Amino acid sequence: MGELQIKGKLAKEASRFLALASTKQKNTALLEMSSGLIANYETILAENEKDVLTAKQNGTPETMLDRLRLTKERIFEIANGVKQIADLPDPIAQVDGMFQNEAGLTIGKKRVPLGVIGIIYESRPNVTVDAASLCFKAGNAVILRGGSEAIHSNLALVSILQQAVQHASFPKTVIQLVEDTSREVAKELMCLNEYLDVLIPRGGAGLIQSVLQTATVPVIETGTGNCHVYIDANADFDMATRILVNAKTSRPSVCNACETLLIHEAVAEELLPLIEKELSPFDVELRADDKARAFLSRAIPATQKDFETEFLDFILAIKVVTNVEDAISHINQYGTGHSEAIVTNDYFTGLKFQNEVDAAAVYINASTRFTDGFEFGFGAEIGISTQKLHARGPMGLQELTSTKYIIFGEGQIR
Amino acid sequence: MGELQIKGKLAKEASRFLALASTKQKNTALLEMSSGLIANYETILAENEKDVLTAKQNGTPETMLDRLRLTKERIFEIANGVKQIADLPDPIAQVDGMFQNEAGLTIGKKRVPLGVIGIIYESRPNVTVDAASLCFKAGNAVILRGGSEAIHSNLALVSILQQAVQHASFPKTVIQLVEDTSREVAKELMCLNEYLDVLIPRGGAGLIQSVLQTATVPVIETGTGNCHVYIDANADFDMATRILVNAKTSRPSVCNACETLLIHEAVAEELLPLIEKELSPFDVELRADDKARAFLSRAIPATQKDFETEFLDFILAIKVVTNVEDAISHINQYGTGHSEAIVTNDYFTGLKFQNEVDAAAVYINASTRFTDGFEFGFGAEIGISTQKLHARGPMGLQELTSTKYIIFGEGQIR
Repeated sequence: MGELQIKGKLAKEASRFLALASTKQKNTALLEMSSGLIANYETILAENEKDVLTAKQNGTPETMLDRLRLTKERIFEIANGVKQIADLPDPIAQVDGMFQNEAGLTIGKKRVPLGVIGIIYESRPNVTVDAASLCFKAGNAVILRGGSEAIHSNLALVSILQQAVQHASFPKTVIQLVEDTSREVAKELMCLNEYLDVLIPRGGAGLIQSVLQTATVPVIETGTGNCHVYIDANADFDMATRILVNAKTSRPSVCNACETLLIHEAVAEELLPLIEKELSPFDVELRADDKARAFLSRAIPATQKDFETEFLDFILAIKVVTNVEDAISHINQYGTGHSEAIVTNDYFTGLKFQNEVDAAAVYINASTRFTDGFEFGFGAEIGISTQKLHARGPMGLQELTSTKYIIFGEGQIR
Repeated sequence: MGELQIKGKLAKEASRFLALASTKQKNTALLEMSSGLIANYETILAENEKDVLTAKQNGTPETMLDRLRLTKERIFEIANGVKQIADLPDPIAQVDGMFQNEAGLTIGKKRVPLGVIGIIYESRPNVTVDAASLCFKAGNAVILRGGSEAIHSNLALVSILQQAVQHASFPKTVIQLVEDTSREVAKELMCLNEYLDVLIPRGGAGLIQSVLQTATVPVIETGTGNCHVYIDANADFDMATRILVNAKTSRPSVCNACETLLIHEAVAEELLPLIEKELSPFDVELRADDKARAFLSRAIPATQKDFETEFLDFILAIKVVTNVEDAISHINQYGTGHSEAIVTNDYFTGLKFQNEVDAAAVYINASTRFTDGFEFGFGAEIGISTQKLHARGPMGLQELTSTKYIIFGEGQIR
């Protein structure tokens, strides 16, 4: 048997154990994980240094190095995140409504773990701990497959987490790391139907696409956000500018950042110069259609490709639209179904936009940047689903569970 | 563009229209569908006769012919089913709880259609109408791909449904049938990610497996049921026999029928002869392990394969187990996660079984045959999900929907 067959089988067994653990047992283990990370931060730093060094030698750019690099502060932050997960309510074993059917059976829908969750991700080692602790709290065994760039960091982190769960009397196989980071083994993980209940890719569009194309296990698609802000003819100029600037510049590298501004033709002439001015301190490159460029001094022409692209950078595509229908139709064509916002003072236009735009989160008069498990008050986030099956939008603990019908009979037959 | 590209694009457009339709508009269309089927039953019968004739010429066995064959009564039943769907509550636009987050945003989770649903199924033409009307009520456009054996029946049915929705002012493309029934086009449908939001296969294990292996669009796995009845040492003999006989013989060809009997060793000697006697009028073939065969007169030896098989026939595998743990472990190894039952008088054994068996529906003292959307009171059923993602167990209208976060702001930025 290969590594994955063995790990899959162990994970399935461990998941049966974990599914029956009490909230108290699970929280004890989470607190052990948190203190284990803090107690061993120097080991983690030393292992992380190896990864960073290799990455440097391979000429990895600084932005990527930054994702990979751990510091004492970051490790403490990560450990604190695990502690917070211990504090969250346990979704498991809640029964959402119980009823009696015509035959007199008492039927309840009980929340249960998904079972074994696979996570495929890239260079950020914090995902190792975040994902493992969230899956654990929701009663799931996890098989982690991080990037080869972070292998030393991930091995160190998982080893600490495994020791912690063992201290709390769990089998260490509730959390496992795939040590062979080859593409072949990644593909094998995507098709490990016998043992995996779901696979969640976390990373860039390339990773997500590759998983969608290859996986035979159920996948939750996360994170691609080609988000729009539409400024209506009836918008408040200050509010519109504030929301757009926030959505574009507060953190351009994340999936809920704005990539395209759609602006009603009635206000383009007056508002676009103001927006250009407000964006200039952030050095945002503007790629605009011809109508918009007439009112902008530094914009370059936008191509069709620009409207399709999630820049994740200080770049903004701009298009002038004739009305809200035009904006909705553009978004439904080019958007990735993540987060979309309208700025308007008009009641009916706002509702129309919210009803007709097909996305996980549709905002009236607020920044797209709020689409986030913490901002929504879930206390945690495993990712943001852009698919319509199972979960849509920010996914917290609840989204890492399934249900089981429990039926109490008295000898009924059909 | 090929047939599917065109149909996919049209379905997506139609789904935007349908998503905004009122409950009244949708119900009017459903009633038109129902009366259209009744008014045109002779046309349907004539087209169905062509399919049946071809099937006969191809030497199709009678059980398969029966699945394919429509009668006036069946058509009226199908039409009545559509009428019942009109009577069901509309799941769309319900908002499950609205709350304010720390930033003061008002956030609601609104139920919305999935969008475009693909259904791949085999020879039963009633699925064409059932699936189309359920998807329609939940606001989804549907692309149906039935078997080549039923193509004339399906073309006639879909044409009638399309006329009906047009009478009610919907685009006829809310319901479409794939006319090219080749395997290549079926595969293309499984990978129509640009237009399909979900694919639901309905049929035998072969079809489901082929879809799981090939599909790149999200799939809801349905219907494979290797179900068990476990009779505990503390069971009531009458109840145990009644439940087992019902689960095995009331309709062996369906997915919630029992395939394997697990029986506690303490009661095997006394109870197995009684069970054999009660099953004998139904001519059930018994395939038993050695321990069980000692107490049975007509059983043949069971192989490992028998315990893995969904017979869908008057065949029962039998195994003697030493305790409830043994039964649970057998079920979790061989079961397909559909429906499992224990017969016991012991409180703790019943709960242990229900907690530890990993399946969509776990019964204490009732027949597995109750796992069904109608029996559960959902008023409809698109299938029974055996996966853990999105939906588990009988799927009604609610399971054909997704959600969208609607956020009302007052200019908030992050």
